[in-house]
This record gives sequence, structure tokens and C-alpha cells, in this order.
Amino acid sequence: MLSGKVLVAQGGGPTAVINQSMVGAVLESRKFRNVERVYGAFHGVRGIVNEDLLDLTQETTHNLEMVAETPSSALGSTRDKPDLPYCQEIFKVLKAHEVKHFFYIGGNDSSDTVRIVSEEAAKARYDLRCVHIPKTIDNDLMVNDHTPGFPSAARFVAQAFMGINLDNWALPGVYIGVVMGRHAGFLTAASALGKKFPDDGPHLIYVPERVFDIDAFLASVKETYERHGRCVVAVSEGIHDSAGTPIITRLAKEVETDAHGNVQLSGSGALGDLLAETVREKLGIKRVRADTLGYMQRSFVGCVSDVDQREAREVGEKAVQFAMWENRHGSVTIHRTGFYSVDYQYSDLNAVAGKTRTMPDQFIAPAGNDVTDAFRMYLRPLLGSGLPDSFRLRANYVPKVLGR
Amino acid sequence: MLSGKVLVAQGGGPTAVINQSMVGAVLESRKFRNVERVYGAFHGVRGIVNEDLLDLTQETTHNLEMVAETPSSALGSTRDKPDLPYCQEIFKVLKAHEVKHFFYIGGNDSSDTVRIVSEEAAKARYDLRCVHIPKTIDNDLMVNDHTPGFPSAARFVAQAFMGINLDNWALPGVYIGVVMGRHAGFLTAASALGKKFPDDGPHLIYVPERVFDIDAFLASVKETYERHGRCVVAVSEGIHDSAGTPIITRLAKEVETDAHGNVQLSGSGALGDLLAETVREKLGIKRVRADTLGYMQRSFVGCVSDVDQREAREVGEKAVQFAMWENRHGSVTIHRTGFYSVDYQYSDLNAVAGKTRTMPDQFIAPAGNDVTDAFRMYLRPLLGSGLPDSFRLRANYVPKVLGR
Repeated sequence: MLSGKVLVAQGGGPTAVINQSMVGAVLESRKFRNVERVYGAFHGVRGIVNEDLLDLTQETTHNLEMVAETPSSALGSTRDKPDLPYCQEIFKVLKAHEVKHFFYIGGNDSSDTVRIVSEEAAKARYDLRCVHIPKTIDNDLMVNDHTPGFPSAARFVAQAFMGINLDNWALPGVYIGVVMGRHAGFLTAASALGKKFPDDGPHLIYVPERVFDIDAFLASVKETYERHGRCVVAVSEGIHDSAGTPIITRLAKEVETDAHGNVQLSGSGALGDLLAETVREKLGIKRVRADTLGYMQRSFVGCVSDVDQREAREVGEKAVQFAMWENRHGSVTIHRTGFYSVDYQYSDLNAVAGKTRTMPDQFIAPAGNDVTDAFRMYLRPLLGSGLPDSFRLRANYVPKVLGR
Repeated sequence: MLSGKVLVAQGGGPTAVINQSMVGAVLESRKFRNVERVYGAFHGVRGIVNEDLLDLTQETTHNLEMVAETPSSALGSTRDKPDLPYCQEIFKVLKAHEVKHFFYIGGNDSSDTVRIVSEEAAKARYDLRCVHIPKTIDNDLMVNDHTPGFPSAARFVAQAFMGINLDNWALPGVYIGVVMGRHAGFLTAASALGKKFPDDGPHLIYVPERVFDIDAFLASVKETYERHGRCVVAVSEGIHDSAGTPIITRLAKEVETDAHGNVQLSGSGALGDLLAETVREKLGIKRVRADTLGYMQRSFVGCVSDVDQREAREVGEKAVQFAMWENRHGSVTIHRTGFYSVDYQYSDLNAVAGKTRTMPDQFIAPAGNDVTDAFRMYLRPLLGSGLPDSFRLRANYVPKVLGR
């Protein structure tokens, strides 16, 4: 076991349970005698470079537990992707502070950061154990059955569409809800878990794993509207045409990109508005509404899966245990072992880093505009206990007297 | 007491607790011997005209209780505003079915419908007791301290901004959240209840009770961004310039209006996107995001105030009691009698119908971009029990070694 300090950091988009992982890693680290201090970096790798560090050994267990229950990265986050000079700066700080264990909680971009830092550490012959702790609402990490953060975001999306369906039933029309998910449709597909009755929405679900054809979309909306007098659509922000061009870029005047070269899809209502306008114009339906679920999906306070909470805590704990008892870098991965149970493994960073998992074919209905029961079986246990339910009045019709 | 049937209907935008009021009225009505049957109209007044009625006397108490817990109008809703011929059609159906008590759950448009129906009933010498049961997330009904549906929507907005603030703290930038509220800023102001620490957002809150000046807005965003390195803004969909022109109409290509002559402000991300683009262009801030909270505000399942639930139930019960024991039409109104307690009165329809209440001056900070503690005191008890809390890590800074 390496003696020295532990450094924990959080990267990428916040989730509802990312602090569970941080607190799991911090509290577990504090149990080990070889750990001198447990530091937290403010705003991910940028905090390391800037030497903005917090001493988490001086934080009370009680406050750590309260922070664990609080959504969004308590240490702050960053979108920075370290290159070689950036990593050399990281090393200077890690060396200066005698950090020997580096835990980075994040998605595929962050796991790639961990991989680069571990490689640079090896090149520099600096004795550092680098561990990636999984986190992403997109659920797009390789090797993992699913990733912490996704179940809570999925629960938010399911509950949102459960309510949207009830609202749309009361005041019928076409509703289009735009859900986060650049390349993976898991979160958009989660909207299906809000359905109870056969005629409940979302009636149509579009994920980025399939080509989005505007004419087929319009035909499906028309058909649903004619059958039910209304239509609720869940659509991923990442839908694209057959050439791979995101539907949103047809509209956006300027496409803002981040340091990773990602197109900025969130934080704008443009895609929903474009689709709503198209439905209004082409189908002549008057009441067409679009919402973009936006940042609430990952940061809403008060809609968390208890299963997600405990798994996020465990990957943080396991990260420390793997780092201490195994002599290698790695990524903690989640593996399903029952209906419902999971176990954790210590996987190779190269198997996870920088790669993107998408929805398997068996989760997407052949028509490409719905999910399958296999997906429902996959997702339901992740949503946790106490999921709200919806009820209807029974159809005891009063005989018409005037009979018009 | 009039002998005959009871008819209950729901109008306007659904809320999270509107079914509590419906179930309260139905269960209370079923206790009275003079009530032959309790009917529900499908989709408000339109359901009456179409003779689409449900017999709620044949509904189990158990299922009614489950429906009461379910958000959004279980009887369906409508935006129709009856004129004279419409009301004559209503009478034909009410007479044919021997309806003697008409309970309409809705906002100011619906209370106006109740008023017109009661007047037409008097003109037609038809013996009908008309009662308006209050409901609106906008909280804009006269006479009432507040209206059922508002507290739950306010709780959603507060929890949404609590999370948005945490997210924006982790990945700083400018965030603009657009909140429902055509003329009244109560719901937008509710975003302030998500604040805990002095530097928490929303840092700026814009309500339609004040003129929205784009230059003053930009100056305030700039100032906040320079002080905190970030800025969270809550803005009402109904903000307008000094000429009273909604800011959104500067952008919208076509303005869709409903039967009441209302401009359609919801179901589009246009206002948020316009404001975000303006901040980006004029202030040169790169990370600017906008969300429109949309229909989730009134229909999200799983974010309900227990205070709101019980009050919504009580106004339904009281409506029946007033209708049975008092010999007049009226509107059930809510009056605050303690910190925190309420009582219900039977007010004149003319005092409520078709009027709009807005935020009193003492709830809006003099600068016009924030709320006051008086507003916080007013709103907090309405949000109910179990409101989530947020926690931070303490600032135990690690001394810099490299000292850059």
C-alpha cells in the first residue's frame, strides 16, 4: 500500500448522487492508516492545477453525510480535458502535496482524463494510483451494466412524463419533450417507465441510436393523434438524420462546442421548438407544445432513486478498497448479478476510457419509435422504491338523455 | 336544500392537487340525502354541452382516494369560455339530467364561467346552485390568500432552482430559468425559496409586476457574474417592456392565442433562448444556458406540498357545505388566520370572477429584481413538510505549496 495523501475530484456534468461517491471514497480512505490526509480538488483537474484543495480530513462525518444527500458536485466540476502540459502541471501539484491516490469521479471524458494522468504518471515515474469512479446520467460507459447518476435522472424523466401524460390527457394536443443524451438514448427511453395504461404517453420515443426521419416522425404523430386524439413524444436531444447531422444543427445559428469537441445540445429550447413548429405546419394541429427538460434532469433536488444512492456510495467505497488492495490503476464497474442485485469489479481503464456505450438493439422496438419490455425490465429496479403511481376514474358513463 | 343531482367539473390548466378538490366535493356530496347522484363532466363545460358525463356515485371511495393523490384533472379539462348560446346548451343538459348543484374547479377564467352560468340560470329561472372552487398555479385569484395548486407548483419551482443553483455552482456560468405566470409573479418568486447560503441563486428574479428593461437586466447579470463568477436568473414568462409588450413577442413569429384572448406563452423555449443569446452577445460570456421549466411545473408527479393537498381537499368539501347550507351562489376562498392556519369563506362570485391578482409591492424588492423576506414568510408554510435541504463542504483550505 502506498503511503501518502488521497485526492478526490469530480468531473463532468453533476448528478443527483455524485456526492455519495465522493463521500464513500472520503470516508473509506479515512479508515486506512497509510492515508495521511484526504484532499478534495475544487473543480476537478483544474482545481489540482490551480492548487485549490480542501482538506476533507477536517470535515465532520455528519456534514459529509449531509453533503452525500445533496445533489450536484460538492467539490465543483470542470469540462477541462488535460493534455500533456496540463498533466505535467497536475504532477507538480500532486508531488508537492505527496498525493499517492487519485480518485476521479466522472463519465467517459473523465475516465479518459484518469487514463492520461496515469500514463503521464508512469512516464514521469511518479508513484501514483489512479482510479476512475463511474458517473453519468447518460448511462453510456462501457463495461458497466449501468452508471450511478443515471437511475435518478431516469426516475426524474419517468416521473416528468408520467405527469406530462396526465396533463396532456386533461388538455389534449401534441406534446414534445426533449431529453438529454448526446449519443445514448437510455435517458429518453426512461420516459416509457411513466406509462401505466395502454393509451398512456409517451406514445413515441426517439433515441439517437436510430436515424430520425422527419417524414416518418410526422406520419407516426398523425397516426397517434388520430387514434388517441393526442400524442406525447419523447425525443433525445441527440437525434440526427441519415447523414449523422444532428437535427438541432439545422436550426442553431451558432453551434457552441466545448473543449472536448462536443456540440452543445442542452440549455436551449431550439430542437423542441423546431419539431413543434414542424408538426403545427405540416399536420395542421393547433395545440402543439414542446418542453426541453433541461438541467433539472441531472440536478433536481427531491427525485432520487434510493438504489442509485447506495450504488453511488458503494462505487466510491470500492474504489478505495481496489486502490489499496490491488496493485494497479483501474475503473470501478457495476455488474448485474440478480433481479435485482449488483457486484463491483476493477476494470481496465482502457476498456472504459473515452468510449461510448449506446442502447443495445433488444431495448429498441423494431419500428424505432418505442422501447421494448426488455428495456423496462432492465430499468425498473434501478428506479428504486416509492415510485409514484397514477390512477384514473372508472368509465361509468351516464346515459345521454338528449342524445346529441 | 335543493334536491337533485350534483355535477362537478374541472377547468383550465391542471394542477398537482386539483383532484383533491374534486374528490372532496364528490365524497362530501355523497353524504347528503338530497343528493340523488354525483356526476362528473368530462373536459369541463365542453363535457356538459356534449353530455359526456360520468356517474361518480358508482366510483369506489378507495379509487377516489387514489385519484385524489394523482396530479392533473382526472375529469379532463377545457379552455372553453361559455358565451350565451353555449350557456343555453349547458342548461339544456343540466335540466335534462336534473342537476341542481354545479361545482366548477378552476382559476379566474373558470370562475367567470361559473358567474355567467349562474346569471344565465337566473335569467332562465332554472333552480341551480353554482359554486366556484379555486384552483390555479398562478396564485392570481382575488380575495384568496393563495390558491390550491400554487403551493405544489411553487414547491416544484423552489426545488428546481435549488438544484439548478447547485449545478451552476459546480459548473459556473449564466443560467436563465423561465417560469410560468402570465400576469402574476408568485410562481417565479417561489424560486427564491430554494436559496440557503447568501451567495446561492437565483441571484436575480424578474416578475411581470415590474417593467423588464433589457439594459438593466444585462447590467445586473454582469454585476452578479463579476461578484460570484456565475449568475442564476429566474424570469417570468410574462415579462414585458414599458409599453406592456411581452418580451417574448419580439421573437415569436406567430403568436397563438386561445379562446380567452390569452397569448400562448408556455410550451416554447423562445423567451429563454432570446435572453441567453442576448447575454452571450452583449456581455461576451461563453457559458450561458436557458431552460423553460414548462409543463412540469404544474404536472410533475412526486413533488407535492402536503399543505396544498389538504387545503385543496377542504375547499372541495367546503364548496358542498356552502352550497347546501347557504342559499346563494359563490366562490370558496382561502383566508390566512395564523402562522400557519387558514379558514374558508363563501365569497361573492363577482369579487373573484375574471379578475387577476398580482404580487403586492411588499413582496418585491425595491430594485425590482428580487423578492423580500415578507414574501419568504408568506410562502414558506405553504410549501409543506419535508422540503429538501442542501449542504456544502466547509472551506478547510489546504495551504498552497507551490504558491502559484
